[in-house]
This record gives sequence, C-alpha cells and structure tokens, in this order.
Amino acid sequence: MHASPSTFSGRFITLEGGEGAGKTTQINLLREALQEKGYDVVITREPGGTTEAEAIRTLLVTQQDREWTVEAETLLLFAARSMHLRDLILPELEQGKIVLCDRFTDSTRVYQGYGREMDKTKIETIKAVTIGDFEPDLTLLCDIPAEKGLSRSLKRLDETGSNERRYEEKDLSFHETLRRGFLELANKHSKRIKIIDADRTVDDIHLQILQEVMNAV
Amino acid sequence: MHASPSTFSGRFITLEGGEGAGKTTQINLLREALQEKGYDVVITREPGGTTEAEAIRTLLVTQQDREWTVEAETLLLFAARSMHLRDLILPELEQGKIVLCDRFTDSTRVYQGYGREMDKTKIETIKAVTIGDFEPDLTLLCDIPAEKGLSRSLKRLDETGSNERRYEEKDLSFHETLRRGFLELANKHSKRIKIIDADRTVDDIHLQILQEVMNAV
Repeated sequence: MHASPSTFSGRFITLEGGEGAGKTTQINLLREALQEKGYDVVITREPGGTTEAEAIRTLLVTQQDREWTVEAETLLLFAARSMHLRDLILPELEQGKIVLCDRFTDSTRVYQGYGREMDKTKIETIKAVTIGDFEPDLTLLCDIPAEKGLSRSLKRLDETGSNERRYEEKDLSFHETLRRGFLELANKHSKRIKIIDADRTVDDIHLQILQEVMNAV
Repeated sequence: MHASPSTFSGRFITLEGGEGAGKTTQINLLREALQEKGYDVVITREPGGTTEAEAIRTLLVTQQDREWTVEAETLLLFAARSMHLRDLILPELEQGKIVLCDRFTDSTRVYQGYGREMDKTKIETIKAVTIGDFEPDLTLLCDIPAEKGLSRSLKRLDETGSNERRYEEKDLSFHETLRRGFLELANKHSKRIKIIDADRTVDDIHLQILQEVMNAV
C-alpha cells in the first residue's frame, strides 16, 4: 500500500552512474510515468539547477582551460549543491513534489573520491559542513560496463556538438574506477541505492526504475 | 640580526582590516620599501590572484544579483584560496620571495564568521580540509574605527565608479562587528597578527608596518 498522491509529502530521488548510462533518457521517462500517476514532478540536475549553481557549473564544466585542484573542485560542487538545495530542492519537497535529480553527492564521492583520488573522509567532512546529513530518499544507479557507456557518451557528444567532455577524455581505466566506485557505494548503502542494469533496452530499464520508485513513494 | 636578502627563504605577509583601512595604499608602500632593501616582492590579493581564483571572485563580488548562502560563499572563498596557494603563493615563496597579500583566511573568519555569523568551527573545518595548517608568517591588521573606514571606502568607491560595494551597503553595526572580530583574532593570535593603528597619517602607518615586517624577516 503506497501513499496516494494527495497525501504525498515529497521525495528526493537521484539518478547516478558513469557517462553514457542513459540517465537523461530515463529521468524523462520516469517523469512522464509519475505524472501520469498524478504526482507533481520536478526534474533538475547537478552541478547546477539554480542561477548560482549553474554559474558554478560554467566554471567547472564549460571553461575547460581551467585546471582546478580536486579540493577546489569539490568545494565548488558543494557550494553549488548548497544553493541548489536551499533554492530549489527543499522548497519543492516542502510542496510535496517528487524531485528527480540527475547526479548528486554520490557523483562527487565517485568522480572526486574514486576518480580523482581525493581523500574520501575530506569529501564527507565538506558534505557534513555544507548540507549536513541530507541524502536522497532513493538513488537509482544506472550501471553499464565502462567501455559501452563511454562509447555511447562520445557518440552523443559528437552528435550534439557539446564541449562538456572533460571526463570523456579520460582513459578507460578511469571510467572503470568510477564504475567500481558507484558499485561500492551501492553496496554500502544498499537500502538507499538501487542498482539498475542499464545495459538493456530503454523500456526494460524504465520498467525496473519505475518499480523501484513505486516501492519508495 | 635579520636574514640578509641573499639567504632569505620567503615570507607570506597578509594585510587585513575592514573597509577603508588603507590596505591598498600601505601594501604598495611596503612593496617599494622592501624592494629598496633588496627583497623580491610579489603583491597579490584575495579573493583572486590567479585566473581560476579571479573567476570565483567575479561570482562573489561583481555579480551582485547573486545571493550566496554564507556556507556557499565560504566554500567559494576556500576554493579560490586553494588555487591561489597552489598556483601563486607557494611557488613564489619557494623562490624566496616576500608575498604580500591583501586579505587572506582572517578575512573569511571575520566577514563570514563574525559578519555573516557562520559557525566558526565550520569555517576552521573547511580551512583544515582545504589548506591544512597553512597560515601567514605575519599579518598586519589595519585597524580603524568602523565609521571612519566606511566613509573613506564609500568615497573611494564613488570616485572610482566601482561596483564592488557589497559590504559597504551594510549598516554601521555590521562594520563594528567586523572590527571587533579582527581585534579578537589579533588578541588570540598575538604572535602572528600585529595591530596597526590605521587612524593616522599614511607615513606614520607605513613606518609602523615596515618596522613589524623587518622584525619578521
């Protein structure tokens, strides 16, 4: 027995995973399905989501000539996250909406902690100071072999002419490290993080995601 | 007996104080005096000092329509600081130079900790994670009654047409709180932070500053 939309008190659901795992496609399908069931749904993303946070995203993602230390990068990500949380995520949750977010703290844990090898305790310290013990109600980890995800992502970037390829330029072993990081997190937080096998058809992936979400709302 | 310039191993000296305390004038006079004595001197400032850090400064200072939480602001300041330290301050110190910096961590302690009332322990936590126990060798606190400093600063901003007036728009009690914060810090770290009475002539202030610096090099 799930709460009906009318008595629903907001859920924060994140999609996580490496490059090319199909998060964007799935987040849109999930929104449609939830809206059809009568839920109020908001989609957002990180880094970004609000004016201030998107300005930080520009520093991190678009301006590729900048070489941030991993500590600076992590501080910037959490600065953006604290604004995103205050100005968008929390107000929408308070209104009883389902907030679907493309990446959140787990991405920092994995990309900065595993990928760029920042001290994981330091990341948790910055997190605690910035957003306290706030975590998603549910995290869907779209898992796909690194090689497949990477080739998908490169193809998409070429098609769209995007220059947001700072991670796509790293070698395969980097992406395998990210995958291992996400799976380790899912193992550690198995109640919150559900592993979605993203090496299947779009429809199959969507059905599993929707099932996990309906179990959680 | 002081080290001669030829055997000198770098000193990091910061100037601190509220608005309108005359730091910029004094830092330039200090540079000239030290150069005349044969020292290699570099002037820099915070937030800023390097390409990446200046990009963060733009977010914080120039774009006045943004309303950062104090936590986000502090994370941005330390992100800039970590880049500044790695890319400018430490390399110059390693070359044996005197690095004069207009504002540093003490300004964050005072403006964010006292002024915007952020938890001071959190600020120290972020500091420790970002730059460890790095502190200036000497800090010159240019102290002036808040009312005098504020009116000086407003006059200067009007003359230069600057829009960097985010603190000048706060009321007098805010600036009095900042002054109290700086003085408390100087009290707590009396070996590192020297109080300079900045309510005197430019020459008198300069002489005291130069004396403190020559005691430290």
